Amino acid sequence: MEPSNSSDNVTLETIVALAKRRGFIFPGSEIYGGLAGTFDYGPMGAVLKDNIKNLWWRMFVDMRDDMYRLDAAILMNPKAWEASGHVSGFSDPLVECSNCKKRFRADQLENPEKCPSCGKEHTFGEVRQFNMMFATKAGSTEDESATVYLRPETAGGIFVNFKNVVDSMHPKLPFGIAQIGKAFRNEIAPRDFIFRLRELEQMEIEYFVKESGWKDAFSELQALMHEFAKALGLSEVHELEVEKADLAHYSERTIDFEFDYPFGRKELWGLAYRGDFDLKAHQEASGAKLEYLDEELKEKFIPHVIEPSLGVDRTLLAVLLSAYREDDLGGEKRSYLALPPAIAPVKAMVAPLLKNKPELVAKAREVRAVLQKVHPAIAWDDNGNIGKRYRRQDEIGTPFCITIDFDTLGENPDLLDTVTLRHRDSGEQERVSIAEAAERIRTSL
Amino acid sequence: MEPSNSSDNVTLETIVALAKRRGFIFPGSEIYGGLAGTFDYGPMGAVLKDNIKNLWWRMFVDMRDDMYRLDAAILMNPKAWEASGHVSGFSDPLVECSNCKKRFRADQLENPEKCPSCGKEHTFGEVRQFNMMFATKAGSTEDESATVYLRPETAGGIFVNFKNVVDSMHPKLPFGIAQIGKAFRNEIAPRDFIFRLRELEQMEIEYFVKESGWKDAFSELQALMHEFAKALGLSEVHELEVEKADLAHYSERTIDFEFDYPFGRKELWGLAYRGDFDLKAHQEASGAKLEYLDEELKEKFIPHVIEPSLGVDRTLLAVLLSAYREDDLGGEKRSYLALPPAIAPVKAMVAPLLKNKPELVAKAREVRAVLQKVHPAIAWDDNGNIGKRYRRQDEIGTPFCITIDFDTLGENPDLLDTVTLRHRDSGEQERVSIAEAAERIRTSL
Repeated sequence: MEPSNSSDNVTLETIVALAKRRGFIFPGSEIYGGLAGTFDYGPMGAVLKDNIKNLWWRMFVDMRDDMYRLDAAILMNPKAWEASGHVSGFSDPLVECSNCKKRFRADQLENPEKCPSCGKEHTFGEVRQFNMMFATKAGSTEDESATVYLRPETAGGIFVNFKNVVDSMHPKLPFGIAQIGKAFRNEIAPRDFIFRLRELEQMEIEYFVKESGWKDAFSELQALMHEFAKALGLSEVHELEVEKADLAHYSERTIDFEFDYPFGRKELWGLAYRGDFDLKAHQEASGAKLEYLDEELKEKFIPHVIEPSLGVDRTLLAVLLSAYREDDLGGEKRSYLALPPAIAPVKAMVAPLLKNKPELVAKAREVRAVLQKVHPAIAWDDNGNIGKRYRRQDEIGTPFCITIDFDTLGENPDLLDTVTLRHRDSGEQERVSIAEAAERIRTSL
Repeated sequence: MEPSNSSDNVTLETIVALAKRRGFIFPGSEIYGGLAGTFDYGPMGAVLKDNIKNLWWRMFVDMRDDMYRLDAAILMNPKAWEASGHVSGFSDPLVECSNCKKRFRADQLENPEKCPSCGKEHTFGEVRQFNMMFATKAGSTEDESATVYLRPETAGGIFVNFKNVVDSMHPKLPFGIAQIGKAFRNEIAPRDFIFRLRELEQMEIEYFVKESGWKDAFSELQALMHEFAKALGLSEVHELEVEKADLAHYSERTIDFEFDYPFGRKELWGLAYRGDFDLKAHQEASGAKLEYLDEELKEKFIPHVIEPSLGVDRTLLAVLLSAYREDDLGGEKRSYLALPPAIAPVKAMVAPLLKNKPELVAKAREVRAVLQKVHPAIAWDDNGNIGKRYRRQDEIGTPFCITIDFDTLGENPDLLDTVTLRHRDSGEQERVSIAEAAERIRTSL
């Protein structure tokens, strides 16, 4: 059997089942029947998600001199969302069935004449706009002014802090402000596992430039996004150039990065040139001056902005789909995740050949301590037989499994202080020194 | 002037001003007049916060074999909060002035007879209980069942995932599930900067044990919390043993860890033995079996739990207060943050002595690249004169400043490839090799 690939034939059900079985992703509040549009990341998923985020921090922020981090609150003054247009315009078209009272997204109905829930025809009234922001009341007063929204995107927090970042950090243009955080969208129809969620996480940058410099910055960030896709091990990512006629009035260019999910080719990430629309709108609404002073030219202006926007959850789903493989190993069918070692939740597993031999256990502990100096995520697994352990580690994407046996202790003097190193993708095993095993892990990361 | 210390005399205003000036913390949505109880972390604050969280992950989770990460959703099925008692009991006492209609926390009024806002006496009606959970509506339906809450603590997400973690990871008792994430509390009176927030972040562990083992686990986690306080450089942390009469019925022991903030000695962290109260309540309400099977003893039971609960924001405030120092250096008054290098946002600053000498700039870039192999957070700062740069780095807590001059290039052959290394706390400078500078940074972390 040839290795399979996400874009070929892996089903969403396969990934959902593996994600639950191996502690990546559980339905939110599952013991209470769940909560639509929410999922919880289990021990392996939480680490994989963190690894993806850390790789983004490294590639988009830490390795550069022109990026500044931010961590703004989810609850924001509602005036910010009035200025950005979200209060009036962040909505989906909604229809209600007059018979069963169920509600649907008008643009997602397969047959707009017939209710997909009760089956009656011609029961839909007028299409109305449903605002997707979650509203809540802050403070103990009951008046309308206390209504606040959970942010529908992290970008808003960046724009309202533009002045604070400029005043405290004195960055030189061009520069970016980067943020990772939760955003909330009251989707009428959350669906497709962690693809369309009501609670999601975003990695966003607002990259501020002089108007004349937007094209260069756009290309540079576009290239970086492809590098990131490659580092994550994603199968092909397709660029969709948004057509001029479909662009917002302030934008001259937007690219959707699309991925082939089992439910179709869908938007993974976006890259948009937004002109000076956002800062101008916030300057007008807030009264704060959101200009940048070019000290050399003694010139003040509102910078233009390029926005690379990446959803964490749908990225993680694309990572799982891209990494999933099935093959035949030693006569047995197996499935595994060919995750890049840099983002694999566990870098290597260490185990004694037999758990009831104290001298093997002691040596294995010693080896693990050595490897943990390379990376702390070295698992210990002495549960069940060795085949079962390998199957477990394959399914969580652990690149290496290391077994300590009597030869490691010197039963065969030529093999003293060597271990069996098993490679996840090929299933092949080789005999290497402990130092060499550590080096293999180090260079893989 | 002797070094000063938080517990002595630093005011909250001093820290608030430094935090804003140096890009640590800004008022939330500030350009729109703010939003009570929210703050935004700027470029330095976001990194400091991440460093604190990563130290917690390392000490409480990654260096141990008995801890599992989790990242559960903020929006949870409301039944979880009914089971936990939050819907009925997570409330503060509220009074309203009949004259000005302002509302106050009854237990925080200095003079319960007189309104602190309008000054009228005897205007307060009955005290009523105000539930502190933020409510919102999920989905497009209008019926009551769609009301969901923003989680008031991260612990709830851990308990509802107990079964999923056990089923996927097969952990051996005792084990813990650890989570960092946002929580929301609609405080009647948010106050004291980032101490009492409406949007906050928590680091929580539920550590599951056999009933007979709770005392040992409690002591171990208690010791770990003190180690963590030490690693963060906190000034004295005081243990307050909650008295038997004040304990919840299910708890036999709770310790508050208190810190001397400028506004008084207040709770920093908590450590509680909660018996089997939580899992039992969720088992009863959900119908799911939340038992643990001891495979050796062939025995099923509901584990007991120890809960170390740490607020990220109030920890960060304690870190800033503990690190703040004022002294006299070379005849000038200065302030600096004596942050432990492991959590300092910038590990070292590198600069050429003169920014208009290309050969100095090139060498400084080269030195920086060498140091960035030790840690990426090596800042480049050639803005303004050197005194101004030092003042900036002192105030963000950068442990080392490294200057490249003509001797580095070999103007004095004996000093070829040496740099000036300045120490933040003493202001002292020494001449060391580039390799030695890298080594100093490495060993400090």
